[in-house]
Amino acid sequence: MSEPLRPAPLRLGIAGLGTVGIGVLKILRKEAAMLTARTGRDITVTAICARNRGKDRGVPLDGYAWEDDPVTLATRDDVDVFVELMGGSDGPAKAATEAALNAGKDVVTANKAMLAVHGQALAEQAEGAGRVIRFEAAVAGGIPVVKALTEGLAGNNVTRILGVMNGTCNYILTRMQSAGLPYDIVFQEASDLGYLEADPNLDVGGIDAGHKLALLASIAFGTRVAFDDMELEGIGRITIDDIRAAEDMGYKIKLLGVSKMTDRGLEQRMAPCLVPATSPLGQLEGGTNMVVLEGDAVGQIVLRGAGAGEGPTASAVLGDICDIARGFRLPVFGQPADSLRDATPAVSTTPAPYYVRLTLQDKPGALAKVASVLAEAEVSIHRMRQYDHTGGRAPVLIVTHKTPRKALDKALQGMAATGVVEGEPVALRIEAV
Amino acid sequence: MSEPLRPAPLRLGIAGLGTVGIGVLKILRKEAAMLTARTGRDITVTAICARNRGKDRGVPLDGYAWEDDPVTLATRDDVDVFVELMGGSDGPAKAATEAALNAGKDVVTANKAMLAVHGQALAEQAEGAGRVIRFEAAVAGGIPVVKALTEGLAGNNVTRILGVMNGTCNYILTRMQSAGLPYDIVFQEASDLGYLEADPNLDVGGIDAGHKLALLASIAFGTRVAFDDMELEGIGRITIDDIRAAEDMGYKIKLLGVSKMTDRGLEQRMAPCLVPATSPLGQLEGGTNMVVLEGDAVGQIVLRGAGAGEGPTASAVLGDICDIARGFRLPVFGQPADSLRDATPAVSTTPAPYYVRLTLQDKPGALAKVASVLAEAEVSIHRMRQYDHTGGRAPVLIVTHKTPRKALDKALQGMAATGVVEGEPVALRIEAV
Repeated sequence: MSEPLRPAPLRLGIAGLGTVGIGVLKILRKEAAMLTARTGRDITVTAICARNRGKDRGVPLDGYAWEDDPVTLATRDDVDVFVELMGGSDGPAKAATEAALNAGKDVVTANKAMLAVHGQALAEQAEGAGRVIRFEAAVAGGIPVVKALTEGLAGNNVTRILGVMNGTCNYILTRMQSAGLPYDIVFQEASDLGYLEADPNLDVGGIDAGHKLALLASIAFGTRVAFDDMELEGIGRITIDDIRAAEDMGYKIKLLGVSKMTDRGLEQRMAPCLVPATSPLGQLEGGTNMVVLEGDAVGQIVLRGAGAGEGPTASAVLGDICDIARGFRLPVFGQPADSLRDATPAVSTTPAPYYVRLTLQDKPGALAKVASVLAEAEVSIHRMRQYDHTGGRAPVLIVTHKTPRKALDKALQGMAATGVVEGEPVALRIEAV
Repeated sequence: MSEPLRPAPLRLGIAGLGTVGIGVLKILRKEAAMLTARTGRDITVTAICARNRGKDRGVPLDGYAWEDDPVTLATRDDVDVFVELMGGSDGPAKAATEAALNAGKDVVTANKAMLAVHGQALAEQAEGAGRVIRFEAAVAGGIPVVKALTEGLAGNNVTRILGVMNGTCNYILTRMQSAGLPYDIVFQEASDLGYLEADPNLDVGGIDAGHKLALLASIAFGTRVAFDDMELEGIGRITIDDIRAAEDMGYKIKLLGVSKMTDRGLEQRMAPCLVPATSPLGQLEGGTNMVVLEGDAVGQIVLRGAGAGEGPTASAVLGDICDIARGFRLPVFGQPADSLRDATPAVSTTPAPYYVRLTLQDKPGALAKVASVLAEAEVSIHRMRQYDHTGGRAPVLIVTHKTPRKALDKALQGMAATGVVEGEPVALRIEAV
């Protein structure tokens, strides 16, 4: 039999030459033969684009056409796939992605913010033009979780998604615990190590992880990305005392995302919570990510790997590029964008135990007031501990029995009205994972 | 814009209506609308085939054409995809798969034995005919590991694969440990529970897990499936004493597969070994599977899930069917079968500590003889423990310092020649995972 003709090379235009962009370029240069063997096509880079042309990035760039403007790069006739690695929900990333789709290019992106905010519009544009947008690198770094969910579990009604998906937050929380250091010091360490986004609130505010959860929820439940409806809470109020108290009770504090579809609507929350220290999620150290996918047929699948960094993120980008080279085409969120439903946001009504830390003013009867507020809200106390007074203030830790969030919120509001609680209590759900 | 025409339905012929086949049928019946939304096509079942037509399988089968002969089913004009769920490396499964490919059908199979033995020939046949064979369900049940490796990690040089991939063996080993029961009793329990293959040696002899490892190694390293070259050892010689001794030292015994490519050739071994009790592999309980994929870009990815059972295996079959419905086409082992290299089999030269259990005859100087044999082979002893004599025999446990397997084998041969060692010692590698 004669050898079939090899298809034309797949030509990439890469915008953004930071850690990830350079990582992608390195693999494309070093592993060209392997990639061709695996995809049946040569994969070439035609043009590149970044903010600073002169910077030495440790990789020779003279073989590629340089563009100053990502929109120009994205619409070049000699580019088949626009690889968007600039980041940012709006601005150049969005403009260039739209231009690429308009010009009939496929898009590979690592940009969770852009898709969490504009995913529906971009998916509709892509699908209207017969183009694909692939975003494996946008969620959980090197873990092929978008692929597992969209393709591997396509025969499942997904019942729940859980995940630790921001390595920086997990680094901060595990470092606080292991070194016994307060949040501010570890936050500064993370900053010095370059672990934080330019706007650190994207990390520690839970926004980045929330973007990722919103994208997975859209695929899992066939709903439009609904990041704005997510219950979102960052790790900035977690103190070393919280971490120690959790540890004493056999828990660890994780910034955990949970999403599930219920009769009442779509639950999505990204918040610090307590998980059993011996559970796989509890044992997750440092920058590692873990995603748990639950489906009615498959049961529970757990995926663990590096959530960020040059190699892992580049690996995910390359996986998407290889899929496109192999001719795999599917809707952006796994089913046509115009068939995705609007989801009603729902807050979990499943009772859960909660950990509550509050600061009491040192007044007679203060603790009794708090206890009676809890009783009025029908929140029953599993354990309570009051520490030594410092400066007229007493820290109090409470672990509740299983209680609906609504009842807890009522109690928290009641506490504010007592006049004996300083500031806002910290309330963390204890998740049975 | 007008709606694009929906492509013709994808028509399946399913051979084998055991647990998995019925699981697949149930999902296809119950989730038809979901599958169409996700793949853009209707997926229908045209014909079915099993050994016993009369049996009540709990699902109405009158809507499907019945075939007694899987070859006839596989070649029907109204079948696009032959779904092979009969099992067995040869016989009807192979005949029908070949017939299906000949007749221009794609194939989805859960048959690790057939692919481990005939994978190269079948892949060449499929690719010569422009057809695909997909086999996600053949490896690690519901875990989408074939997809993760072949597609998600396509940008990586895979450096190592590790895995616990036979749930029955893991059930037996963890049950021995938790209940303190001997192998024979737990083996019988597993048999009564229906956990064992018709030929139990496929499970406890490590063959089934070896088949799976051989398939993953082929994808990972671009080599022809080389199951015959694998170092293979089952769990039949593991005693409750081994499990307890391992536990005392902080280890668990797992039937673990390891494969890596080295300068000397391809290492593939499937054997019981000791892993740290606190490691993710060590904590794996019951029928759960875990596969660890290591790549030069991605680092380490860990995948965990149910390794068998109706739902998980059907989930994997459905994933493959959906991929075909979506038009995804790729070579059987990730790159064209005629480009896969023959791999030279290699035995690990990396020194590792070993656990050795032997039975000494109760003669003066017996232990000294064993110790001097070890010394001659340059195997140095980390710990040694001799237990009370029973009936003129003394069990001896030895943990070595790191030693090359070659040196250990020399020592084991030397022991046999001393005349004071009863039977063959058990030697288990201690893996740092």
